[in-house]
Amino acid sequence: MSAQPSPAPVEAPRARFRPPSVPQVDVRGFWGARVDAVADRTADILYERCVEAGMLDQIDPDRPVPELRIPFHPGGKVTMQMFWDSDLGKTIETAAYSLYRKPNPELEKKIDAVIDMFEKLQQPDGYLSSWYQRMEPGKRWTNLRDCHELYCAGHMIEGAVAYYQATGKRKFLDVMSRYADHIATVLGPNPGQKHGYCGHEELELALVKLARATGNHKYMDFAKYLIDQRGQQPHYFDEESLARGENPSEFHFKNYEYNQSHLPVREQDKVVGHAVRAMYLYSGMADVATEYGDESLRVALDRLWDDLHSKRLYVTGGLGPSADNEGFTADYDLPNETAYAETCAAVGLAFWANRMLGMGPNTRYADAMELALYNGSISGISLDGSLFFYENPLESRGAHNRWKWHRCPCCPPNIGRMVASIGSYMYGQADGEVAVHLYCDSTARLDIGGSEVTLTQDTRYPWDGAIAIKVDVEKPTRFALNLRIPAWSRRASLSVNGTPIDLSTVTSDGYAKIDREWKAGDTVQLDLDLAVERFYAHPEVRQDTGRVAIKRGPLLYCLEGIDNGVALNRIRVPQSTAFDANFEPGLLEGIVTLSARAEADATSDWDGNLYRNEPPKTETVPIKAVPYYAWDNRAPGEMLVWLRGN
Amino acid sequence: MSAQPSPAPVEAPRARFRPPSVPQVDVRGFWGARVDAVADRTADILYERCVEAGMLDQIDPDRPVPELRIPFHPGGKVTMQMFWDSDLGKTIETAAYSLYRKPNPELEKKIDAVIDMFEKLQQPDGYLSSWYQRMEPGKRWTNLRDCHELYCAGHMIEGAVAYYQATGKRKFLDVMSRYADHIATVLGPNPGQKHGYCGHEELELALVKLARATGNHKYMDFAKYLIDQRGQQPHYFDEESLARGENPSEFHFKNYEYNQSHLPVREQDKVVGHAVRAMYLYSGMADVATEYGDESLRVALDRLWDDLHSKRLYVTGGLGPSADNEGFTADYDLPNETAYAETCAAVGLAFWANRMLGMGPNTRYADAMELALYNGSISGISLDGSLFFYENPLESRGAHNRWKWHRCPCCPPNIGRMVASIGSYMYGQADGEVAVHLYCDSTARLDIGGSEVTLTQDTRYPWDGAIAIKVDVEKPTRFALNLRIPAWSRRASLSVNGTPIDLSTVTSDGYAKIDREWKAGDTVQLDLDLAVERFYAHPEVRQDTGRVAIKRGPLLYCLEGIDNGVALNRIRVPQSTAFDANFEPGLLEGIVTLSARAEADATSDWDGNLYRNEPPKTETVPIKAVPYYAWDNRAPGEMLVWLRGN
Repeated sequence: MSAQPSPAPVEAPRARFRPPSVPQVDVRGFWGARVDAVADRTADILYERCVEAGMLDQIDPDRPVPELRIPFHPGGKVTMQMFWDSDLGKTIETAAYSLYRKPNPELEKKIDAVIDMFEKLQQPDGYLSSWYQRMEPGKRWTNLRDCHELYCAGHMIEGAVAYYQATGKRKFLDVMSRYADHIATVLGPNPGQKHGYCGHEELELALVKLARATGNHKYMDFAKYLIDQRGQQPHYFDEESLARGENPSEFHFKNYEYNQSHLPVREQDKVVGHAVRAMYLYSGMADVATEYGDESLRVALDRLWDDLHSKRLYVTGGLGPSADNEGFTADYDLPNETAYAETCAAVGLAFWANRMLGMGPNTRYADAMELALYNGSISGISLDGSLFFYENPLESRGAHNRWKWHRCPCCPPNIGRMVASIGSYMYGQADGEVAVHLYCDSTARLDIGGSEVTLTQDTRYPWDGAIAIKVDVEKPTRFALNLRIPAWSRRASLSVNGTPIDLSTVTSDGYAKIDREWKAGDTVQLDLDLAVERFYAHPEVRQDTGRVAIKRGPLLYCLEGIDNGVALNRIRVPQSTAFDANFEPGLLEGIVTLSARAEADATSDWDGNLYRNEPPKTETVPIKAVPYYAWDNRAPGEMLVWLRGN
Repeated sequence: MSAQPSPAPVEAPRARFRPPSVPQVDVRGFWGARVDAVADRTADILYERCVEAGMLDQIDPDRPVPELRIPFHPGGKVTMQMFWDSDLGKTIETAAYSLYRKPNPELEKKIDAVIDMFEKLQQPDGYLSSWYQRMEPGKRWTNLRDCHELYCAGHMIEGAVAYYQATGKRKFLDVMSRYADHIATVLGPNPGQKHGYCGHEELELALVKLARATGNHKYMDFAKYLIDQRGQQPHYFDEESLARGENPSEFHFKNYEYNQSHLPVREQDKVVGHAVRAMYLYSGMADVATEYGDESLRVALDRLWDDLHSKRLYVTGGLGPSADNEGFTADYDLPNETAYAETCAAVGLAFWANRMLGMGPNTRYADAMELALYNGSISGISLDGSLFFYENPLESRGAHNRWKWHRCPCCPPNIGRMVASIGSYMYGQADGEVAVHLYCDSTARLDIGGSEVTLTQDTRYPWDGAIAIKVDVEKPTRFALNLRIPAWSRRASLSVNGTPIDLSTVTSDGYAKIDREWKAGDTVQLDLDLAVERFYAHPEVRQDTGRVAIKRGPLLYCLEGIDNGVALNRIRVPQSTAFDANFEPGLLEGIVTLSARAEADATSDWDGNLYRNEPPKTETVPIKAVPYYAWDNRAPGEMLVWLRGN
């Protein structure tokens, strides 16, 4: 057995990390089952439901222009169709990853046909928006604030990049590159250009993807322009509104916090407004901060990150409590039963956290990404991949159930593409470095300085904390392997080829760095402890006072009525409550449940009284908790995350 | 000192009790201040705001017919104006009681002019509805279900009776008698008559008032018909709907539980649907049960009473938790922050309870009446009488504040007339019997078998539990004085002319009966104990588990942010918490506050964390509670009824 190289100093400057493409990582285990559900069912469902909604009638230039048939804002002219290009973009993206995982010639043919429609629809100057070309002709570039023109472009670009990476087909990528080229002539800092930017952020992060996929840095520069220009004075949305003959102060959402254009982005310090918009903006900012080494952006992002994580985030990783603005309200305002916590917003937080990792491994971001992925995001899709949540409450009386489709169908393809691309969230690659952000049974084929490196994770995570990582290299290759040690794991242990490593000497920002020459067959063993932990909310979160949430590893747990014999708010889990973790292979596709003896307020001695002077008596009841992501996959019933008892 | 007559046997059959008229009772003290606020301010305000809303434009036959200008249901033709006659009716009723208390020639002149308009509007056949005569001509008696035609008639009758009793002017009473005569020809059990009844109950109880005021028993019989016919098959609302060419199943509110016509009233056993409708129906049923000695109605009413009080009533006496149907939902569903608990519904419960007392004194009903009056009703009006709540939540973050007026202005005149007529709720009179239902500094002039009896209450109640009642009679007069001993008073004591009476020997259904020959100057002394009490909700009330409400005598207390230094849900009041009651003359027009040392979850050691594994530390904080009715009369801020801690 050879001597181990001494670990690199933990203060070594971090390289910039980029995620691998989806085809580089084969996922099995926990996420493999989720990806299969998307590939087997969701990808087809998304396409079919887009067709049923009439989206192809809108985009196909060979069909008659359809009626404005689905009023969205009562009395207004805005309809669902305004952002249908984006839903098709995400549907194509989901299909792309799914096709890579499981060939589906039928679906591929249909997607190719949609791409042909977009190609045919595209104007000679590159412009491409089914809404503005067919439904509202003559109005292009007149209302960036409200009308999702750039948002749609962004999602179509993401779809194009994914379809190219998964199938090798360039057509859609070329179409969208031409459209991006066109947009960059219309918008920009130069005289004669509109100094505008996204009303619903999204194009920024998409342009970074396009730049990375095409190698064309001008898309990156354009993303940076969109971010730098945002919120500058004179305010573009005011000017645009005046040009339409409207009063800028009659903005439906009342203030520019709604779309995070109230201040230049580097001056923003509160996570405000529409939650999905916010997450997409911060994601684009993080990409630009990574790519340009932009310290002023990084500082602003960390301030916003602190604000979200210290005052405005659900324990599920969900965010944006209010249906009113689909977004943020006041500090510590986190209602449970009425939580909006849109699936897209938790997906957006995973995007943002993932992109913060571009600036170097840091479990502060990776823990948050894991939280959002395992809990508030995938709660948005049923285990079989066929039904979807838009809102993700933390308490329910049984009437909140996943739907087949939404009036505003943003969430289904968003959670579909996120699940299907989970492999790209697991790793980060930089010069001479690999970071392992997530653990899951899987095989990754990475290119480290021109050398192919295969990392095989053998693990039952998140049900079990033992993770074996086998390293395969063509020839001995030196690189630093950065292994995330989640903050929730208090007694993690690590060994390389059986030799224990003192984590305290190699860990920085929550990542253990093993910098050595790796040989084929080297094996890393990481053991994370998955103790059941109680979480308490800050006392200013009025909805959670006197209550406790239960987590095990990355998974937040909840009680469902179907597993428990009494109304869930009658139950109390004192600090002495001991939970037993048991893997139940036949339940909800195989989960670890947490069982305990708890207390419950007794109802037997109330004699028909609704109120009385004596407090309720207490009885002992068995309780069983299941992972939050898996709730509402059986008969409808109560659900509760925050249990009584501190 | 003469020997006391032995008390009457407690099983003596109860006589039927009727309330005194408002002019018979002069109210001082607690209710006197409330009545003065209505007489000094609310009565004028109601008239002015009715005028501002355009109501006189609708009813005055000398003005042009106005536009249907205020859409109520978006897209529909129904507007606010449909029930404006009722709002004027209640405004006239409020003015009537106020004029009696304090002459106001200006207001009286205005009300006389409104009555002249109604008189002029009335058709030769007696019909009188400004909506159907001027806004929807030709459609009278075609939609009892939805269009408030009979509801308006009822409120106008109540206004007419009150105006007659307070001013002696008969004109409006005669107008409304003619209209009632007409309605009784259109509706009824006979061939050729429509077998219909109220879509929004109200006329039933109004007809009983009209019968009592005019001595014409046919109005009573018609009230009984309306109640007996309700919910019979074939269902009148179905037939009426078919006659309009509509599908009966397309009823906006989905089911006839909404207006309590789903079953004949004697078969109903759940308090369902629109809360105000329900309370008005049960009030009318109680009047008819009293007047006809109808045992089958009484049994149904007691079943409904039990249902409400065992599963569906807020601890404030508020009811109807949902804004959706302005009414009831599921058993034990009593959300606090989103409570609808319409002011009119609590007023309606006071009506119902008051009418149950017609069948004999019983503190089961009187306690409920007192609860609704002192808490969930008068919370609906500001201390100065100028602002109004429609919803009466039990928890607020400070954004729920009383309004100047409502889109549907039912509550302001309803709480106005109730407060101004409080004297009639205090007593009941039957042959040879008087019942004292409520205690308040006041003088009542009652007619007991032709003999004038004056009862003078000298008390600071509800701030203090000592009540002296002086009896003045022209000549020695024998009658039974029934004194309510509230169930919440555990250590009440009673004496007559200084001689103690053993309550256990004279008390039945919570009323102490003193049956004797009363002489001028006889004095009864009743002492109720006003201990601070903790109330717990049934464990199935999920919103209140682990929480406690604080009452003192009839008054429910709450915390307001302005009196307390920390966010209210951080506060915990363990069972050991001792409350000090202090009268504060300068606060909120003089109230007893409850102060204590409580616990609060500390925030100082959270270091910017939103969640952590350690439960919050506890610190000691002073807290001060104020009566619920008085909340939101200072700067807006948090309010909480159900405090943490059992």
